[in-house]
Amino acid sequence: MKIAIYGYGNLGRGVEAAAQQNADVELTGVFTRRDPAGVKTRTGVPVYPAAEVAAHKDEIDVLIICGGSATDLPEMTPALAKQFNVIDSFDHHAVIPEHFAAVNAAAEEGGNLALISCGWDPGLFSLNRLIANSVLPEGRDYTFWGRGVSQGHSDAIRRIEGVLDARQYTVPVEEAVKAVRNGENPELTTRQKHLRECYVVAEEGADLERITREIVTMPDYFADYDTTVEFITAEELQEKHAGLPHGGVVIRSGKTGIDREHNETIEFSLKLDSNPEFTSSVLVAYARAVCRMAGRGRTGCITVFDVAPADLSPKTPEEIRRTML
Amino acid sequence: MKIAIYGYGNLGRGVEAAAQQNADVELTGVFTRRDPAGVKTRTGVPVYPAAEVAAHKDEIDVLIICGGSATDLPEMTPALAKQFNVIDSFDHHAVIPEHFAAVNAAAEEGGNLALISCGWDPGLFSLNRLIANSVLPEGRDYTFWGRGVSQGHSDAIRRIEGVLDARQYTVPVEEAVKAVRNGENPELTTRQKHLRECYVVAEEGADLERITREIVTMPDYFADYDTTVEFITAEELQEKHAGLPHGGVVIRSGKTGIDREHNETIEFSLKLDSNPEFTSSVLVAYARAVCRMAGRGRTGCITVFDVAPADLSPKTPEEIRRTML
Repeated sequence: MKIAIYGYGNLGRGVEAAAQQNADVELTGVFTRRDPAGVKTRTGVPVYPAAEVAAHKDEIDVLIICGGSATDLPEMTPALAKQFNVIDSFDHHAVIPEHFAAVNAAAEEGGNLALISCGWDPGLFSLNRLIANSVLPEGRDYTFWGRGVSQGHSDAIRRIEGVLDARQYTVPVEEAVKAVRNGENPELTTRQKHLRECYVVAEEGADLERITREIVTMPDYFADYDTTVEFITAEELQEKHAGLPHGGVVIRSGKTGIDREHNETIEFSLKLDSNPEFTSSVLVAYARAVCRMAGRGRTGCITVFDVAPADLSPKTPEEIRRTML
Repeated sequence: MKIAIYGYGNLGRGVEAAAQQNADVELTGVFTRRDPAGVKTRTGVPVYPAAEVAAHKDEIDVLIICGGSATDLPEMTPALAKQFNVIDSFDHHAVIPEHFAAVNAAAEEGGNLALISCGWDPGLFSLNRLIANSVLPEGRDYTFWGRGVSQGHSDAIRRIEGVLDARQYTVPVEEAVKAVRNGENPELTTRQKHLRECYVVAEEGADLERITREIVTMPDYFADYDTTVEFITAEELQEKHAGLPHGGVVIRSGKTGIDREHNETIEFSLKLDSNPEFTSSVLVAYARAVCRMAGRGRTGCITVFDVAPADLSPKTPEEIRRTML
């Protein structure tokens, strides 16, 4: 299977690493909107200008689009789905139906297959929500994120006057997770589910009280949460907070039995040292499925919900039944 | 969707309860090898002799076969797959390929669709092993079972002279689970993974030391484990150990990154008050998929690996994308 990367940031570099771990995957190129001369890949794979991607059609079975969800993907994925089988990690949950419709029309026009909103949330977490809801129709869903770095929240802090750099961790409230695991089915407010921990590098002489106040009262991002702010040096930030760990847990707690007398709990969790590398690994596995399903004539837009798990594996159906069932 | 139950034990009763929880599912009958006059269903659904199942073909979209894996299913599933779309919970892992081949031939002969080895292990656990292996090609798998009642081990104890009744719990070793969750990738022996707790009701005057010795030295069942034996009264067994709880956890711990420098952990776990009711709930969700896939012309034998998750849900594709992605 020949894949190519469109957009070479954290996610694109993750796909490059993941491709190396899959013997049936050949990475044929990286496409960038920057000047290719200034982009050096880590494995020596060639870099081309994004504008020339159409010329490489024969070298690409599936194009993995590694752009941002805010502005890149709503444009890129429909445009590229006209020419290629594609996969993206569009994660703006509220507007997935609109994105789906646009990509579906483009993919059908080109006779291609596109898989959107792949990764872990949306992605593997969604899959577990769907399966758990199907198995336990009467129950309750919970999703907790973290402990992990939220890049959006870190960026929001960096925009405050006097802030040089920042790192924000989203942290699930332990008592809440415990109550859910115990089948107590609690009603939880935003504040009861997650904490926010901020590590901030301030300019010399900056008003730390004002910065703290601006962080903890920031609407949407922090006002509804218990937020802690700690000022640290640039060196300490680099030393202790350079990584992009993340993770989380999806739990469904439901009832079975004639009198709904039994409680059943289904839990799926991730503990990730590298959020972008894990997301990329999911993208590569689903790119394999896109390649196979397109080969069987499937066109249009799909999601993780539409992929039979056997299509994710490089192994034969006989082998997976023998070794993993 | 019209379903029927073939075999009315713990699993069959679980399917009866699960059918009630799914508005799109109609349970049209229970088929039993016992005298139907002596079988009373809990929801009033009619009971028929197993031998007459063919006469009810028009009332059955999918037949859920609730027999035992040791001797029932190897005969029943191929025989019934010639006439019906079927689903079973065959759980004898080592001979799944043989069972698959026999059921596949029968289902193809009848133009039907059969899904075998459904439930949680094999079933949802298998699904998670497959997905986690596909996403993290370099890593290690662990499966722990329990804390839960093993009916096979309980039966083995009951066969010992002087034993009136017994209940055996399989218990994962906490330190082992912790080490795996920490990404330590330990090598674990059988003994290091699970403990076995036995609660035994003995005949009056029985030689308790001999019974204990016979249990803890029993090959395959107990000899390779740290096993505890506690003698209790029949009343205490009934009061504290009447249920059939179970559960377990599947963990894959793998590496990502150009230098495999990051650890990623995927975990799926179940905590079940009722093992048979949960297994039945999985069967009913997959019966829905069998019904849909058969309706699209699919024939032969399949497993959970071949089912696109969207087919498990009673909701429309639009609805699941909007609410669960």
